[in-house]
Amino acid sequence: MSDAARDPAAQRIEALMQHCRQRCERRLVRLFDEAPGPAPRLEQAMRYGVLGGGKRLRPVLVYAAGRTLGAGDEALDAPAAAVELIHAYSLVHDDLPSMDDDALRRGQPTCHRAFDEATALLAGDALQSLAFEVLTAGETPRAAAMVATLAQAAGRGGMAGGQALDLAAVGGRLDVEQLMAVHRHKTGALIRAAVRLGGLAAAAGDDPRLEALDRYAAAIGLAFQIQDDILDVTGDAEVTGKTQGADAARDKPTYPALLGLDEARRQAQALVDEGCSALAGLDAQPLIDLARYMVERNH
Amino acid sequence: MSDAARDPAAQRIEALMQHCRQRCERRLVRLFDEAPGPAPRLEQAMRYGVLGGGKRLRPVLVYAAGRTLGAGDEALDAPAAAVELIHAYSLVHDDLPSMDDDALRRGQPTCHRAFDEATALLAGDALQSLAFEVLTAGETPRAAAMVATLAQAAGRGGMAGGQALDLAAVGGRLDVEQLMAVHRHKTGALIRAAVRLGGLAAAAGDDPRLEALDRYAAAIGLAFQIQDDILDVTGDAEVTGKTQGADAARDKPTYPALLGLDEARRQAQALVDEGCSALAGLDAQPLIDLARYMVERNH
Repeated sequence: MSDAARDPAAQRIEALMQHCRQRCERRLVRLFDEAPGPAPRLEQAMRYGVLGGGKRLRPVLVYAAGRTLGAGDEALDAPAAAVELIHAYSLVHDDLPSMDDDALRRGQPTCHRAFDEATALLAGDALQSLAFEVLTAGETPRAAAMVATLAQAAGRGGMAGGQALDLAAVGGRLDVEQLMAVHRHKTGALIRAAVRLGGLAAAAGDDPRLEALDRYAAAIGLAFQIQDDILDVTGDAEVTGKTQGADAARDKPTYPALLGLDEARRQAQALVDEGCSALAGLDAQPLIDLARYMVERNH
Repeated sequence: MSDAARDPAAQRIEALMQHCRQRCERRLVRLFDEAPGPAPRLEQAMRYGVLGGGKRLRPVLVYAAGRTLGAGDEALDAPAAAVELIHAYSLVHDDLPSMDDDALRRGQPTCHRAFDEATALLAGDALQSLAFEVLTAGETPRAAAMVATLAQAAGRGGMAGGQALDLAAVGGRLDVEQLMAVHRHKTGALIRAAVRLGGLAAAAGDDPRLEALDRYAAAIGLAFQIQDDILDVTGDAEVTGKTQGADAARDKPTYPALLGLDEARRQAQALVDEGCSALAGLDAQPLIDLARYMVERNH
């Protein structure tokens, strides 16, 4: 009997994730089918970069946050696709030889290995453009506010800034505060954007419920990263799809290395509790389930 | 006595370009000064990529098109900066070793030579994000429509698609139709977006004057590219800042190679005439001056 069959929370989260993944996948496929560009190889590389699977955690957060504030799924498809396109572009560029020089991603050849470096570069570039295109193509409410949120989260003050901090840190020594600053930008900013985008589909930018969602998102974003580091040490490569100890081997600082494994686990759990308590007063079971999933997942 | 001192049209265009360049430069500098990101080296590389000079032709087109439909300069600063940020990101990525592998740009080391490849990659990525951030940061009218226009022009259906077509063409044979298709996407799409962005600052998306502006932009975009190819053959490297014959040496197809120099010149002039005639009924002297500048420039 699987965990999901025994545990009602695990069943709920499994059903939610599957539903959201399917909706997001359909929106992404439609995007490519509707209006193909003139260069077939670029189209293939873009599809390869974004349709290749993955947890779709950020889209799931868009749907869960949006539903919490009362948005329908139809209003959430575009922001869910947009945030996944930004995530996918960042992975394609991150894997390039001048960055992490990775050969495999989710057990498959990385985009520049499956195609070539120039095509992977352009595919990442065009996936980023497409994120902003999908947000503004239809009748998405508050599209301009969503673009502002996503562009800030993706750019120099968010993900790209965090990647640059990370580059500067390789081989050096970071303390826990500095490591948290890297992750707050590198992965945290896009997770917060996902939650805010969902919220914006239902509420104006100055709605205080968005502030509560943001406190939740900041906490679970960090918990997610700590768990990633823990899995790098303890995880089964068969399940995570990554080489065990890869970060440590690259001399990348990690939470378990700085805090010890037990303290890293304790902090991740404390962040989940903090994130969930920010949701007090909201009918937010899916977000609470997702927060628990963040630190209980094994991949 | 310089050309500008003798010719009133040249004087007008010189004054317009200087005014627009200064406004755009101020907006870009403010963007970097206002809210720096966490990674100083990335900030430097981004500034290096976009503040390093250049003709600022696309911003000038934003201002000239916007004024033609009655927009004030204040409403045009954000779209002018946005379109230049997209142009700058494309140059930084275009110069990378996996693309054109260029060492010099405007007589200075390219971004990846001045910094490093990973930083140049991230700088280009973050310049693209910043374009969408600046469009949606303030009270820009029709910001969502502007984002849609710019994202389409930058992405797989526009610039990135054109670069992929161009990659596929190196070393092969293109006829004039195919070469025009490359340029319609690679450079034409962003020039059309610049003109449309200016128009959108003053007029709704379905205003028929935007259609007239677009016919103008499509024609002069192609004329601009033909003149670029002509300058690659005839230009003085000291003035153009590029190696003479560089395209031919790379086996890139060019208009003079396909049409002969005289016919290329004739077609560029015919496109300028076609573009200007689309503006009939509009008070559009700056756009007409700019069209002439496109084919009379020597750099």
